[in-house]
Amino acid sequence: MAEEQQLTAAGNEISASFLAARRRSENTMAALEKDPSKFTMLTGDRPTGRLHLGHYFGSIRERVAMQNRGVNTNIIIADYQVITDRDTTEHIQDNVLNLVLDYLAAGIDPERTMIFTHSAVPQENQLMLPFLSLVTEAELHRNPTVKAEMEASGHALTGLLLTYPVHQACDILFCKANVVPIGKDNLPHIEITRTIARRFNERYAKKDPVFPEPAAILSEAAEIPGLDGRKMSKSYGNSIMLGATAEETAKLIRKSKTDGERRITFDPVHRPEVSALLTTAGLVTDRNPEDIAAEIGDAGAGALKQYVTQSVNEFLAPHRERRAELAQDMDTIRDILHDGNKRAREIAEQTLDEVREAMGMKY
Amino acid sequence: MAEEQQLTAAGNEISASFLAARRRSENTMAALEKDPSKFTMLTGDRPTGRLHLGHYFGSIRERVAMQNRGVNTNIIIADYQVITDRDTTEHIQDNVLNLVLDYLAAGIDPERTMIFTHSAVPQENQLMLPFLSLVTEAELHRNPTVKAEMEASGHALTGLLLTYPVHQACDILFCKANVVPIGKDNLPHIEITRTIARRFNERYAKKDPVFPEPAAILSEAAEIPGLDGRKMSKSYGNSIMLGATAEETAKLIRKSKTDGERRITFDPVHRPEVSALLTTAGLVTDRNPEDIAAEIGDAGAGALKQYVTQSVNEFLAPHRERRAELAQDMDTIRDILHDGNKRAREIAEQTLDEVREAMGMKY
Repeated sequence: MAEEQQLTAAGNEISASFLAARRRSENTMAALEKDPSKFTMLTGDRPTGRLHLGHYFGSIRERVAMQNRGVNTNIIIADYQVITDRDTTEHIQDNVLNLVLDYLAAGIDPERTMIFTHSAVPQENQLMLPFLSLVTEAELHRNPTVKAEMEASGHALTGLLLTYPVHQACDILFCKANVVPIGKDNLPHIEITRTIARRFNERYAKKDPVFPEPAAILSEAAEIPGLDGRKMSKSYGNSIMLGATAEETAKLIRKSKTDGERRITFDPVHRPEVSALLTTAGLVTDRNPEDIAAEIGDAGAGALKQYVTQSVNEFLAPHRERRAELAQDMDTIRDILHDGNKRAREIAEQTLDEVREAMGMKY
Repeated sequence: MAEEQQLTAAGNEISASFLAARRRSENTMAALEKDPSKFTMLTGDRPTGRLHLGHYFGSIRERVAMQNRGVNTNIIIADYQVITDRDTTEHIQDNVLNLVLDYLAAGIDPERTMIFTHSAVPQENQLMLPFLSLVTEAELHRNPTVKAEMEASGHALTGLLLTYPVHQACDILFCKANVVPIGKDNLPHIEITRTIARRFNERYAKKDPVFPEPAAILSEAAEIPGLDGRKMSKSYGNSIMLGATAEETAKLIRKSKTDGERRITFDPVHRPEVSALLTTAGLVTDRNPEDIAAEIGDAGAGALKQYVTQSVNEFLAPHRERRAELAQDMDTIRDILHDGNKRAREIAEQTLDEVREAMGMKY
């Protein structure tokens, strides 16, 4: 009950199903911490740009923690997702290789974590065909992410965006991931993946199920706002990029808007820009934004920006140093990706073989 | 003009676009007969049952002729199409191997014609992802075959049936087929394949197009009715199977219904059963059904059935003999299919590589 009130105060919509999902997520985390080796996790990114601090705190850090716990960790670079809502694959090679750089710089170990690109694994993509037969068009339409992304794109709904929850089911199920960390908004995706796994097993593999029904782990990560208080997004120019230089970062923060009030206070509703700076500083220093505000007090926005710049650059310095070092040898980066792709193909071939066997499609 | 009247008399709907399609088809056939080596053809079958005389006259015979002309001929056994509108893959292995037997018995030469199963070519299936991004949901819905098949199935529209025109585009384009023989009803399928090829080239490969825009060849084959005058279909029990024995065929024809009139006349509208028997006999003897009717005259349905039985069994005897001989060594049949699958994968890998190159998805 106290929990519900707390969440309502934070402005989140509370539903019985969300509370149930959170309970399941907590149970999954507890089981995972007890025996990480029983868990296979899949996460990933769309290579539409470089990673920023929001990605770091929202997902990358957690992936590294999962890997280090001993979970079988897999990261898909979802290059085909780039074209769900746009007509071009511009800069995709650069974006992909820079993702790998950031993963490695952040602590992802390619010996323990499989990094691969969606387009390099035909045996995974073939799962689209049997999986599409297990869902109806009506079920695809009910997915709120598909609706939201279509509206955001301003395009007519493409076949690829409509079937996007099914590709995601392929991504998750080809490597038999049984745990997927997600934001609250993505719960329906996991639901459709669970439905596909269940229906496949019921229809073709009753005695010896081929697919697990993956559990969601709801991300507890605080959402980091962009420097203007809006969502951190490359297109808003409000994002601190992991791979930027200290100077670029300083310039971006210096140019960020604040408000006319000299005294620094933490008030996300009325002072979004100042509060975004405080939140950012709080995250990278692991301090309370209110404490930072009190410390700066009447020194004003200039002093705040100086503090944010220094703390962000200090926090990112080791990441950037490793990143620059890794970028010296892009052949090795490519080799790491090729190795991941090769492993992904082997795993997918094995899964596809089981699928063919279950469906009687061996001739 | 005379042509239009003739078609109207036969009860076909005439439209300007159909006439244009037929003119294009005739031009394509003329070009093909002049230089067959410039043409790559794709056709195929759903392995939902055995082939019957309707398949033979409707498509198989024409495929053999195309192969023998020197066209690069490809036959897909579309095993994933089995589950567009049904929940089971029952008997699929048996159906697939029997298709191969009938192809070979009918004169398909695996040295010149590539026979392969859809499920064995992941690199082809991966084309689904870029291709789905090139069509909108609205365009998928406009396809009349999807609508008709959904209504016939009595099921909710599955994701697989909705996206069926896109799989077919993958089937056609992965091997860069530039000619596809189809019935009139399938013109919209070829249209969507042409659209996908054109959009891919425009978007990603302007300078050096990856895909041809395939041309349709409209089948001129007479449709052979089932023994009861309805469409020949396994589910009606009115089909003469290529692989049946002479005795089974005799029994099926003997048991077929006729009408009360003793005198045999060819009148498809008023005497569908008797006329279906006459049409069948006409096709297998290459005679005019009216002439056969006149010859039998007052001898009645018994004599007609005897004539049909004898002429069908005589016509199919060499096919059945070759078929029985081939069936002695199913390992060789499987080897032929595996060889075809291997070649299909090589071709698809090459095409997928060009697609990755065009899209910049090489890392």
